[in-house]
Amino acid sequence: MERNAALLIIGNEILTGKIRDENTPFLARQLFSLGIRLDRVIVCPDEIDVIARDLNELRRSHHLVFTSGGVGPTHDDVTLDAVAKAFDTPISRSQEMEWLIRSHFKERTTEDHLRMALLPVGARLIRAADISWPTVVIENVYVLPGVPEILRAKFQVIREELDRGDAFYNASVFTLAEEGAIAALLHELTRRFPKILIGSYPQLPGKTDHRVKVTFDGRDAREVAEAAEHFIAGLPEGMFLRRI
Amino acid sequence: MERNAALLIIGNEILTGKIRDENTPFLARQLFSLGIRLDRVIVCPDEIDVIARDLNELRRSHHLVFTSGGVGPTHDDVTLDAVAKAFDTPISRSQEMEWLIRSHFKERTTEDHLRMALLPVGARLIRAADISWPTVVIENVYVLPGVPEILRAKFQVIREELDRGDAFYNASVFTLAEEGAIAALLHELTRRFPKILIGSYPQLPGKTDHRVKVTFDGRDAREVAEAAEHFIAGLPEGMFLRRI
Repeated sequence: MERNAALLIIGNEILTGKIRDENTPFLARQLFSLGIRLDRVIVCPDEIDVIARDLNELRRSHHLVFTSGGVGPTHDDVTLDAVAKAFDTPISRSQEMEWLIRSHFKERTTEDHLRMALLPVGARLIRAADISWPTVVIENVYVLPGVPEILRAKFQVIREELDRGDAFYNASVFTLAEEGAIAALLHELTRRFPKILIGSYPQLPGKTDHRVKVTFDGRDAREVAEAAEHFIAGLPEGMFLRRI
Repeated sequence: MERNAALLIIGNEILTGKIRDENTPFLARQLFSLGIRLDRVIVCPDEIDVIARDLNELRRSHHLVFTSGGVGPTHDDVTLDAVAKAFDTPISRSQEMEWLIRSHFKERTTEDHLRMALLPVGARLIRAADISWPTVVIENVYVLPGVPEILRAKFQVIREELDRGDAFYNASVFTLAEEGAIAALLHELTRRFPKILIGSYPQLPGKTDHRVKVTFDGRDAREVAEAAEHFIAGLPEGMFLRRI
Protein backbone atom coordinates (compact mmCIF):
# COMPACT_ATOMS: atom_id res chain seq x y z
CA MET A 1 0.00 0.00 0.00
CA GLU A 2 1.29 3.43 -0.88
CA ARG A 3 1.54 5.65 2.18
CA ASN A 4 1.52 9.43 2.24
CA ALA A 5 2.46 11.85 4.98
CA ALA A 6 2.21 15.46 6.10
CA LEU A 7 4.31 17.58 8.44
CA LEU A 8 2.97 20.21 10.79
CA ILE A 9 5.83 22.49 11.84
CA ILE A 10 4.79 24.50 14.87
CA GLY A 11 6.89 27.58 15.38
CA ASN A 12 6.61 31.33 15.59
CA GLU A 13 10.41 31.38 15.42
CA ILE A 14 10.31 30.04 11.86
CA LEU A 15 7.50 32.39 10.78
CA THR A 16 9.42 35.39 12.12
CA GLY A 17 12.62 34.25 10.41
CA LYS A 18 14.62 33.81 13.62
CA ILE A 19 15.28 30.12 13.20
CA ARG A 20 15.66 28.10 10.03
CA ASP A 21 13.51 24.99 9.82
CA GLU A 22 16.01 22.10 9.84
CA ASN A 23 13.39 19.46 10.45
CA THR A 24 11.50 19.56 7.14
CA PRO A 25 14.61 18.79 5.01
CA PHE A 26 15.56 15.95 7.38
CA LEU A 27 12.09 14.39 7.54
CA ALA A 28 11.57 14.83 3.78
CA ARG A 29 14.72 12.80 3.04
CA GLN A 30 13.86 10.18 5.64
CA LEU A 31 10.33 9.68 4.33
CA PHE A 32 11.58 9.49 0.73
CA SER A 33 14.01 6.75 1.73
CA LEU A 34 11.14 4.88 3.41
CA GLY A 35 9.00 5.10 0.26
CA ILE A 36 6.48 7.34 2.05
CA ARG A 37 5.24 10.22 -0.10
CA LEU A 38 5.42 13.56 1.69
CA ASP A 39 2.46 15.50 0.27
CA ARG A 40 2.21 18.57 2.43
CA VAL A 41 4.08 20.70 4.94
CA ILE A 42 2.37 23.40 6.98
CA VAL A 43 4.19 25.88 9.20
CA CYS A 44 1.81 27.40 11.74
CA PRO A 45 2.10 29.60 14.83
CA ASP A 46 2.13 28.37 18.46
CA GLU A 47 -1.66 28.71 18.80
CA ILE A 48 -3.79 25.87 20.11
CA ASP A 49 -6.80 26.47 17.85
CA VAL A 50 -4.75 26.77 14.68
CA ILE A 51 -2.69 23.66 15.47
CA ALA A 52 -5.80 21.64 16.36
CA ARG A 53 -7.59 22.66 13.18
CA ASP A 54 -4.61 21.87 10.95
CA LEU A 55 -3.96 18.60 12.71
CA ASN A 56 -7.53 17.52 12.28
CA GLU A 57 -7.43 18.17 8.58
CA LEU A 58 -4.02 16.56 8.07
CA ARG A 59 -4.67 13.42 10.11
CA ARG A 60 -7.80 12.68 8.10
CA SER A 61 -6.22 13.24 4.68
CA HIS A 62 -2.86 11.52 5.24
CA HIS A 63 -1.73 8.12 6.47
CA LEU A 64 0.91 9.64 8.72
CA VAL A 65 1.34 13.05 10.31
CA PHE A 66 4.46 14.31 12.09
CA THR A 67 4.40 17.43 14.20
CA SER A 68 7.54 19.29 15.19
CA GLY A 69 7.87 21.86 17.97
CA GLY A 70 5.99 23.17 20.96
CA VAL A 71 6.53 20.28 23.38
CA GLY A 72 8.56 21.76 26.25
CA PRO A 73 7.52 23.20 29.62
CA THR A 74 7.05 26.90 28.68
CA HIS A 75 3.97 29.00 27.84
CA ASP A 76 4.54 28.64 24.07
CA ASP A 77 4.57 24.81 24.26
CA VAL A 78 0.95 24.07 23.43
CA THR A 79 1.22 21.20 20.97
CA LEU A 80 -0.01 18.42 23.27
CA ASP A 81 -3.02 20.48 24.30
CA ALA A 82 -3.77 21.02 20.63
CA VAL A 83 -3.38 17.30 19.88
CA ALA A 84 -5.89 16.50 22.63
CA LYS A 85 -8.25 19.09 21.22
CA ALA A 86 -7.90 17.70 17.70
CA PHE A 87 -8.68 14.18 18.92
CA ASP A 88 -11.37 15.49 21.28
CA THR A 89 -9.82 13.59 24.15
CA PRO A 90 -8.95 14.82 27.67
CA ILE A 91 -5.44 15.44 28.94
CA SER A 92 -4.27 13.48 31.96
CA ARG A 93 -1.01 13.00 33.77
CA SER A 94 0.86 9.96 32.46
CA GLN A 95 2.45 8.00 35.30
CA GLU A 96 5.14 6.70 32.98
CA MET A 97 6.05 10.25 31.90
CA GLU A 98 5.95 11.56 35.45
CA TRP A 99 8.36 8.83 36.52
CA LEU A 100 10.72 9.66 33.64
CA ILE A 101 10.63 13.38 34.46
CA ARG A 102 11.27 12.84 38.15
CA SER A 103 14.11 10.43 37.39
CA HIS A 104 15.70 12.97 35.08
CA PHE A 105 15.36 16.22 37.04
CA LYS A 106 15.36 14.60 40.51
CA GLU A 107 15.08 17.23 43.26
CA ARG A 108 15.11 20.03 40.65
CA THR A 109 11.73 18.84 39.26
CA THR A 110 9.24 21.73 39.02
CA GLU A 111 5.51 21.85 38.34
CA ASP A 112 6.42 23.21 34.90
CA HIS A 113 8.51 20.13 34.21
CA LEU A 114 5.57 17.98 35.23
CA ARG A 115 3.38 19.79 32.70
CA MET A 116 5.25 17.65 30.15
CA ALA A 117 3.61 14.57 31.70
CA LEU A 118 0.16 15.83 30.71
CA LEU A 119 -0.67 13.70 27.67
CA PRO A 120 -3.80 13.21 25.60
CA VAL A 121 -5.68 10.13 26.80
CA GLY A 122 -5.13 7.34 24.27
CA ALA A 123 -1.57 8.33 23.43
CA ARG A 124 1.14 5.71 23.39
CA LEU A 125 4.82 6.28 24.12
CA ILE A 126 7.67 5.03 21.97
CA ARG A 127 10.78 4.61 24.07
CA ALA A 128 14.37 3.91 23.22
CA ALA A 129 17.13 2.92 25.60
CA ASP A 130 19.49 5.77 24.78
CA ILE A 131 17.03 8.69 24.62
CA SER A 132 15.74 10.41 27.76
CA TRP A 133 12.28 11.19 26.44
CA PRO A 134 9.78 8.96 24.70
CA THR A 135 7.88 10.03 21.58
CA VAL A 136 4.16 10.60 22.02
CA VAL A 137 2.01 8.96 19.33
CA ILE A 138 -1.74 9.07 19.04
CA GLU A 139 -3.34 7.10 16.22
CA ASN A 140 -1.45 8.26 13.09
CA VAL A 141 0.10 11.39 14.64
CA TYR A 142 3.73 11.42 15.82
CA VAL A 143 4.53 14.33 18.13
CA LEU A 144 8.17 15.36 17.72
CA PRO A 145 10.21 18.13 19.34
CA GLY A 146 11.50 21.22 17.54
CA VAL A 147 15.15 20.83 18.56
CA PRO A 148 16.70 19.16 15.49
CA GLU A 149 19.17 16.91 17.32
CA ILE A 150 16.43 15.45 19.53
CA LEU A 151 14.01 15.09 16.63
CA ARG A 152 16.64 13.13 14.68
CA ALA A 153 17.45 10.83 17.57
CA LYS A 154 13.75 10.15 18.12
CA PHE A 155 13.07 9.56 14.45
CA GLN A 156 15.65 6.79 14.27
CA VAL A 157 13.45 4.76 16.62
CA ILE A 158 10.19 5.65 14.85
CA ARG A 159 11.85 4.73 11.55
CA GLU A 160 11.96 1.11 12.59
CA GLU A 161 8.21 0.90 13.01
CA LEU A 162 7.59 2.73 9.72
CA ASP A 163 10.01 0.73 7.61
CA ARG A 164 8.24 -1.73 5.33
CA GLY A 165 11.14 -2.18 2.94
CA ASP A 166 9.56 0.14 0.38
CA ALA A 167 11.75 2.81 -1.14
CA PHE A 168 11.80 5.44 -3.82
CA TYR A 169 14.54 5.36 -6.41
CA ASN A 170 16.06 8.41 -8.00
CA ALA A 171 18.24 9.29 -10.99
CA SER A 172 19.48 12.81 -11.70
CA VAL A 173 20.81 14.09 -15.02
CA PHE A 174 22.76 17.35 -15.30
CA THR A 175 22.55 19.15 -18.62
CA LEU A 176 24.00 22.23 -20.32
CA ALA A 177 20.70 22.89 -22.10
CA GLU A 178 18.33 25.52 -20.77
CA GLU A 179 14.77 24.61 -19.82
CA GLY A 180 13.08 25.94 -22.96
CA ALA A 181 15.21 23.60 -25.09
CA ILE A 182 14.22 20.44 -23.22
CA ALA A 183 10.61 21.21 -22.25
CA ALA A 184 9.09 19.27 -25.16
CA LEU A 185 11.30 16.23 -24.45
CA LEU A 186 10.34 16.26 -20.78
CA HIS A 187 6.69 16.60 -21.62
CA GLU A 188 6.93 13.54 -23.87
CA LEU A 189 8.66 11.57 -21.10
CA THR A 190 5.92 12.38 -18.57
CA ARG A 191 3.48 10.72 -20.99
CA ARG A 192 5.73 7.76 -21.66
CA PHE A 193 6.55 7.14 -17.99
CA PRO A 194 3.40 8.12 -16.11
CA LYS A 195 4.59 6.51 -12.86
CA ILE A 196 7.84 8.45 -12.81
CA LEU A 197 7.90 11.86 -11.15
CA ILE A 198 10.07 14.10 -13.32
CA GLY A 199 11.46 17.37 -12.00
CA SER A 200 13.36 20.10 -13.82
CA TYR A 201 15.53 22.50 -11.78
CA PRO A 202 17.21 25.39 -13.58
CA GLN A 203 20.29 27.15 -12.21
CA LEU A 204 21.44 30.67 -12.86
CA PRO A 205 24.17 30.82 -15.52
CA GLY A 206 27.63 30.75 -13.98
CA LYS A 207 26.50 29.52 -10.58
CA THR A 208 27.06 25.82 -11.26
CA ASP A 209 28.58 23.78 -14.09
CA HIS A 210 25.08 22.82 -15.33
CA ARG A 211 22.06 24.80 -16.48
CA VAL A 212 19.32 22.33 -15.60
CA LYS A 213 19.20 19.32 -13.30
CA VAL A 214 16.49 16.82 -14.23
CA THR A 215 15.38 14.27 -11.65
CA PHE A 216 13.49 11.01 -12.05
CA ASP A 217 11.78 9.42 -9.01
CA GLY A 218 9.83 6.20 -8.84
CA ARG A 219 9.23 2.94 -7.04
CA ASP A 220 10.69 0.77 -9.80
CA ALA A 221 14.47 1.14 -10.07
CA ARG A 222 14.52 -0.20 -13.64
CA GLU A 223 11.83 2.19 -14.82
CA VAL A 224 13.67 5.12 -13.22
CA ALA A 225 16.86 4.16 -15.05
CA GLU A 226 14.98 3.71 -18.32
CA ALA A 227 13.38 7.17 -18.09
CA ALA A 228 16.78 8.76 -17.39
CA GLU A 229 18.33 6.91 -20.37
CA HIS A 230 15.55 8.05 -22.68
CA PHE A 231 16.09 11.61 -21.54
CA ILE A 232 19.85 11.44 -22.13
CA ALA A 233 19.30 9.91 -25.58
CA GLY A 234 16.85 12.68 -26.47
CA LEU A 235 19.07 15.60 -25.39
CA PRO A 236 20.42 17.95 -28.07
CA GLU A 237 24.01 17.16 -29.18
CA GLY A 238 26.64 18.05 -26.58
CA MET A 239 24.16 19.03 -23.86
CA PHE A 240 24.63 15.97 -21.60
CA LEU A 241 26.95 16.62 -18.68
CA ARG A 242 26.61 13.74 -16.21
CA ARG A 243 24.24 11.40 -14.50
CA ILE A 244 24.10 10.35 -10.87
CA MET B 1 -3.52 48.50 9.78
CA GLU B 2 -1.86 45.29 10.75
CA ARG B 3 -1.16 43.12 7.71
CA ASN B 4 -0.66 39.38 7.67
CA ALA B 5 0.74 37.12 4.98
CA ALA B 6 1.05 33.52 3.86
CA LEU B 7 3.54 31.70 1.65
CA LEU B 8 2.70 28.92 -0.76
CA ILE B 9 5.89 27.06 -1.64
CA ILE B 10 5.29 24.92 -4.70
CA GLY B 11 7.82 22.18 -5.09
CA ASN B 12 8.04 18.42 -5.31
CA GLU B 13 11.81 18.90 -4.94
CA ILE B 14 11.33 20.20 -1.39
CA LEU B 15 8.82 17.47 -0.46
CA THR B 16 11.19 14.76 -1.69
CA GLY B 17 14.11 16.33 0.20
CA LYS B 18 16.19 17.05 -2.92
CA ILE B 19 16.33 20.79 -2.47
CA ARG B 20 16.28 22.82 0.72
CA ASP B 21 13.73 25.60 0.80
CA GLU B 22 15.80 28.81 0.91
CA ASN B 23 12.88 31.08 0.16
CA THR B 24 10.86 30.69 3.34
CA PRO B 25 13.70 31.89 5.63
CA PHE B 26 14.39 34.83 3.32
CA LEU B 27 10.75 35.91 2.96
CA ALA B 28 10.10 35.40 6.69
CA ARG B 29 12.92 37.82 7.58
CA GLN B 30 11.83 40.33 4.94
CA LEU B 31 8.20 40.33 6.06
CA PHE B 32 9.23 40.67 9.70
CA SER B 33 11.31 43.72 8.84
CA LEU B 34 8.30 45.19 7.00
CA GLY B 35 6.04 44.67 10.02
CA ILE B 36 3.95 42.11 8.11
CA ARG B 37 3.01 39.08 10.21
CA LEU B 38 3.73 35.80 8.44
CA ASP B 39 0.99 33.48 9.71
CA ARG B 40 1.26 30.42 7.54
CA VAL B 41 3.54 28.56 5.14
CA ILE B 42 2.32 25.66 3.02
CA VAL B 43 4.58 23.47 0.91
CA CYS B 44 2.57 21.64 -1.74
CA PRO B 45 3.32 19.51 -4.82
CA ASP B 46 3.38 20.77 -8.43
CA GLU B 47 -0.29 19.91 -8.97
CA ILE B 48 -2.73 22.44 -10.40
CA ASP B 49 -5.74 21.42 -8.31
CA VAL B 50 -3.85 21.40 -5.04
CA ILE B 51 -2.19 24.76 -5.71
CA ALA B 52 -5.49 26.35 -6.79
CA ARG B 53 -7.31 25.08 -3.70
CA ASP B 54 -4.58 26.25 -1.33
CA LEU B 55 -4.27 29.60 -3.04
CA ASN B 56 -7.98 30.18 -2.82
CA GLU B 57 -8.00 29.54 0.87
CA LEU B 58 -4.87 31.59 1.58
CA ARG B 59 -5.82 34.63 -0.50
CA ARG B 60 -9.13 34.92 1.33
CA SER B 61 -7.69 34.56 4.83
CA HIS B 62 -4.56 36.73 4.44
CA HIS B 63 -3.82 40.24 3.25
CA LEU B 64 -0.88 39.11 1.18
CA VAL B 65 0.10 35.79 -0.39
CA PHE B 66 3.44 34.98 -1.99
CA THR B 67 3.91 31.88 -4.09
CA SER B 68 7.33 30.47 -4.91
CA GLY B 69 8.14 27.98 -7.65
CA GLY B 70 6.64 26.43 -10.75
CA VAL B 71 6.92 29.38 -13.15
CA GLY B 72 9.28 28.20 -15.89
CA PRO B 73 8.63 26.62 -19.30
CA THR B 74 8.58 22.91 -18.38
CA HIS B 75 5.78 20.41 -17.68
CA ASP B 76 6.10 20.85 -13.90
CA ASP B 77 5.62 24.63 -14.10
CA VAL B 78 1.90 24.87 -13.48
CA THR B 79 1.65 27.75 -11.01
CA LEU B 80 0.18 30.34 -13.38
CA ASP B 81 -2.47 27.89 -14.58
CA ALA B 82 -3.33 27.24 -10.94
CA VAL B 83 -3.50 30.98 -10.19
CA ALA B 84 -5.93 31.45 -13.08
CA LYS B 85 -7.99 28.56 -11.78
CA ALA B 86 -8.03 29.97 -8.25
CA PHE B 87 -9.21 33.37 -9.53
CA ASP B 88 -11.56 31.71 -12.01
CA THR B 89 -10.12 33.80 -14.82
CA PRO B 90 -8.92 32.70 -18.27
CA ILE B 91 -5.29 32.57 -19.34
CA SER B 92 -4.25 34.68 -22.30
CA ARG B 93 -0.98 35.60 -23.94
CA SER B 94 0.38 38.85 -22.53
CA GLN B 95 1.85 41.02 -25.29
CA GLU B 96 4.21 42.66 -22.84
CA MET B 97 5.53 39.26 -21.69
CA GLU B 98 5.80 37.96 -25.25
CA TRP B 99 7.86 41.00 -26.21
CA LEU B 100 10.17 40.47 -23.19
CA ILE B 101 10.62 36.79 -23.99
CA ARG B 102 11.38 37.42 -27.67
CA SER B 103 13.82 40.21 -26.77
CA HIS B 104 15.61 37.89 -24.37
CA PHE B 105 15.81 34.63 -26.32
CA LYS B 106 15.78 36.24 -29.80
CA GLU B 107 15.99 33.60 -32.54
CA ARG B 108 16.26 30.83 -29.94
CA THR B 109 12.70 31.54 -28.72
CA THR B 110 10.60 28.35 -28.61
CA GLU B 111 6.90 27.71 -28.12
CA ASP B 112 7.80 26.48 -24.64
CA HIS B 113 9.41 29.81 -23.84
CA LEU B 114 6.27 31.55 -25.04
CA ARG B 115 4.20 29.46 -22.62
CA MET B 116 5.63 31.80 -19.98
CA ALA B 117 3.69 34.65 -21.63
CA LEU B 118 0.39 32.95 -20.81
CA LEU B 119 -0.88 34.92 -17.84
CA PRO B 120 -4.15 34.99 -15.91
CA VAL B 121 -6.36 37.79 -17.24
CA GLY B 122 -6.33 40.63 -14.72
CA ALA B 123 -2.73 40.12 -13.65
CA ARG B 124 -0.38 43.08 -13.50
CA LEU B 125 3.36 43.02 -14.03
CA ILE B 126 5.89 44.64 -11.71
CA ARG B 127 9.03 45.47 -13.65
CA ALA B 128 12.44 46.63 -12.60
CA ALA B 129 15.17 48.00 -14.84
CA ASP B 130 17.85 45.50 -13.89
CA ILE B 131 15.80 42.27 -13.86
CA SER B 132 14.92 40.42 -17.04
CA TRP B 133 11.54 39.16 -15.91
CA PRO B 134 8.67 41.03 -14.32
CA THR B 135 6.76 39.72 -11.31
CA VAL B 136 3.18 38.64 -11.94
CA VAL B 137 0.70 39.97 -9.38
CA ILE B 138 -3.02 39.35 -9.29
CA GLU B 139 -5.02 41.09 -6.57
CA ASN B 140 -3.17 40.18 -3.34
CA VAL B 141 -1.13 37.28 -4.78
CA TYR B 142 2.53 37.75 -5.77
CA VAL B 143 3.85 34.98 -8.01
CA LEU B 144 7.56 34.46 -7.42
CA PRO B 145 10.02 31.99 -8.91
CA GLY B 146 11.63 29.09 -7.05
CA VAL B 147 15.26 29.99 -7.86
CA PRO B 148 16.38 31.84 -4.71
CA GLU B 149 18.63 34.42 -6.41
CA ILE B 150 15.85 35.50 -8.77
CA LEU B 151 13.25 35.52 -6.01
CA ARG B 152 15.47 37.79 -3.92
CA ALA B 153 16.11 40.21 -6.77
CA LYS B 154 12.40 40.39 -7.53
CA PHE B 155 11.45 40.85 -3.90
CA GLN B 156 13.62 43.96 -3.58
CA VAL B 157 11.29 45.66 -6.06
CA ILE B 158 8.11 44.33 -4.46
CA ARG B 159 9.43 45.46 -1.09
CA GLU B 160 9.11 49.07 -2.14
CA GLU B 161 5.41 48.76 -2.77
CA LEU B 162 4.85 46.85 0.49
CA ASP B 163 6.87 49.16 2.73
CA ARG B 164 4.68 51.35 4.91
CA GLY B 165 7.33 52.19 7.46
CA ASP B 166 5.94 49.66 9.92
CA ALA B 167 8.38 47.31 11.56
CA PHE B 168 8.63 44.71 14.25
CA TYR B 169 11.21 45.16 16.99
CA ASN B 170 13.04 42.33 18.67
CA ALA B 171 15.14 41.75 21.77
CA SER B 172 16.80 38.42 22.58
CA VAL B 173 18.11 37.32 25.95
CA PHE B 174 20.48 34.38 26.37
CA THR B 175 20.33 32.55 29.68
CA LEU B 176 22.08 29.71 31.48
CA ALA B 177 18.81 28.58 33.07
CA GLU B 178 16.91 25.65 31.63
CA GLU B 179 13.31 26.08 30.49
CA GLY B 180 11.66 24.52 33.53
CA ALA B 181 13.33 27.11 35.74
CA ILE B 182 12.01 30.12 33.82
CA ALA B 183 8.60 28.87 32.65
CA ALA B 184 6.68 30.58 35.48
CA LEU B 185 8.49 33.88 34.88
CA LEU B 186 7.73 33.74 31.15
CA HIS B 187 4.13 32.90 31.81
CA GLU B 188 3.82 35.96 34.05
CA LEU B 189 5.43 38.17 31.38
CA THR B 190 2.96 36.99 28.69
CA ARG B 191 0.18 38.29 30.96
CA ARG B 192 1.96 41.54 31.76
CA PHE B 193 2.89 42.26 28.13
CA PRO B 194 0.01 40.87 26.09
CA LYS B 195 1.16 42.65 22.90
CA ILE B 196 4.64 41.17 23.04
CA LEU B 197 5.24 37.80 21.40
CA ILE B 198 7.59 35.87 23.70
CA GLY B 199 9.48 32.83 22.45
CA SER B 200 11.62 30.36 24.37
CA TYR B 201 14.21 28.30 22.49
CA PRO B 202 16.16 25.66 24.38
CA GLN B 203 19.52 24.35 23.19
CA LEU B 204 21.10 21.01 23.91
CA PRO B 205 23.67 21.19 26.72
CA GLY B 206 27.17 21.76 25.37
CA LYS B 207 26.08 22.84 21.90
CA THR B 208 26.10 26.57 22.60
CA ASP B 209 27.16 28.81 25.50
CA HIS B 210 23.52 29.29 26.56
CA ARG B 211 20.73 26.90 27.55
CA VAL B 212 17.72 28.97 26.48
CA LYS B 213 17.32 31.94 24.18
CA VAL B 214 14.25 34.04 24.94
CA THR B 215 12.94 36.42 22.30
CA PHE B 216 10.60 39.41 22.59
CA ASP B 217 8.87 40.75 19.46
CA GLY B 218 6.51 43.68 19.18
CA ARG B 219 5.57 46.84 17.32
CA ASP B 220 6.57 49.17 20.15
CA ALA B 221 10.34 49.32 20.63
CA ARG B 222 10.03 50.64 24.18
CA GLU B 223 7.62 47.91 25.23
CA VAL B 224 9.92 45.25 23.74
CA ALA B 225 12.86 46.64 25.74
CA GLU B 226 10.76 46.81 28.89
CA ALA B 227 9.65 43.17 28.59
CA ALA B 228 13.28 42.06 28.09
CA GLU B 229 14.39 44.08 31.13
CA HIS B 230 11.68 42.57 33.31
CA PHE B 231 12.76 39.14 32.21
CA ILE B 232 16.42 39.80 33.01
CA ALA B 233 15.49 41.23 36.41
CA GLY B 234 13.39 38.15 37.18
CA LEU B 235 16.04 35.56 36.24
CA PRO B 236 17.55 33.41 39.01
CA GLU B 237 20.92 34.67 40.31
CA GLY B 238 23.80 34.18 37.85
CA MET B 239 21.62 32.87 35.00
CA PHE B 240 21.79 35.96 32.76
CA LEU B 241 24.34 35.65 29.96
CA ARG B 242 23.73 38.47 27.46
CA ARG B 243 21.16 40.47 25.62
CA ILE B 244 21.08 41.52 21.99
